[in-house]
Amino acid sequence: MRKVRVNSFSISLDGYAAGPNQSLENPLGVRGPELFHWFFSTRTWKQMHGHEGGSTGVDNEWAQRGMENVGAWILGRNMFGPLRGEWPDDLWKGWWGEEPPYRVPTFVLTHHPRRSLEMKGGTTFYFITDGIHLALEQAKHAAQGRDVRIGGGVATIQQYLRARLIDELHLAFRPILMGSGENLFAGINLEALGYRCTEHVSTELAIHVLLKKET
Amino acid sequence: MRKVRVNSFSISLDGYAAGPNQSLENPLGVRGPELFHWFFSTRTWKQMHGHEGGSTGVDNEWAQRGMENVGAWILGRNMFGPLRGEWPDDLWKGWWGEEPPYRVPTFVLTHHPRRSLEMKGGTTFYFITDGIHLALEQAKHAAQGRDVRIGGGVATIQQYLRARLIDELHLAFRPILMGSGENLFAGINLEALGYRCTEHVSTELAIHVLLKKET
Repeated sequence: MRKVRVNSFSISLDGYAAGPNQSLENPLGVRGPELFHWFFSTRTWKQMHGHEGGSTGVDNEWAQRGMENVGAWILGRNMFGPLRGEWPDDLWKGWWGEEPPYRVPTFVLTHHPRRSLEMKGGTTFYFITDGIHLALEQAKHAAQGRDVRIGGGVATIQQYLRARLIDELHLAFRPILMGSGENLFAGINLEALGYRCTEHVSTELAIHVLLKKET
Repeated sequence: MRKVRVNSFSISLDGYAAGPNQSLENPLGVRGPELFHWFFSTRTWKQMHGHEGGSTGVDNEWAQRGMENVGAWILGRNMFGPLRGEWPDDLWKGWWGEEPPYRVPTFVLTHHPRRSLEMKGGTTFYFITDGIHLALEQAKHAAQGRDVRIGGGVATIQQYLRARLIDELHLAFRPILMGSGENLFAGINLEALGYRCTEHVSTELAIHVLLKKET
């Protein structure tokens, strides 16, 4: 059974998945990178970015689970870049340089049409203006039987959660407080939507939690 | 150095410290008892209530830390009972029967005056109508050099947090989602108030987190 998944989604103890004030200088918002500290230290992340080394323990197992069997990604526009409104030109190609780490068809939700972008290493960005349901349909088709991973951010994930389209959600709570930013739990009732926690384990850097949709 | 502490404060992964719709039948709100499941199973809790047995591992260590060196308690009125507004009479004496587990002077925040209540086993309830600062002053005096523990609920703890009067806060995240109720993190910026996570550990039943105020 192929799934629609969220993995390695990092949040603070108080529920914030990104810091405030995202910008070109702060793609993850102010203090956002602290949320990903557990992930950046894993072998999985380092390999994705062509580096040696990295941790191989529990954090890495969760990071790796997140990358396995993913046939397509869906990203909210703010995860793709700092620009808002109409695309001024085709120059912005994401935060990740010429060879993004996705390596499969990647669907970017936006209100503004744009031609698709074929990148090095297998990633093609498709810009979808028809809403979350059609984006998911296209992603499922492109994934060819593998899973669809929804990358974020909070607004995108909340939309898919409200539509009960996400099968499982791996959250990595970092033992930090953010105090402001985008809160995953604000304005949404995950319990009423049928999600339950089925696994939890903590490491020095993160508390990993798996939420699954009841069938 | 004596402290003002919150201990064994149980919340769901999405930040809820009590279920919705508190009533005589549901002192902790609907599904509230699930939040305390880790605590009810400890030897510390069982001893407090005159029972045998109970777990002696990590959960119990945190429960025990919470009970040590406490010279006075402060409770919000809703933690004391389901009644709102003026006290109709002196019949309601708390949720805990004739011998409450506090066993020290216990200050109940309320807008409505009431005579103090001496219970069996050392607990006396004092009803304080002069606000959180004077309640804390009286609790500190009554504690005679020991710590003051603030029991809850969310509204009371948030008031003391905003005033930066709490030195440390032990949260026990339960691996459950509540979806609604009283949210500890809503409308408060703990990071800006100077709180930091200094410890975290997880067990089968809870994820224990210690927050401390930076000095």
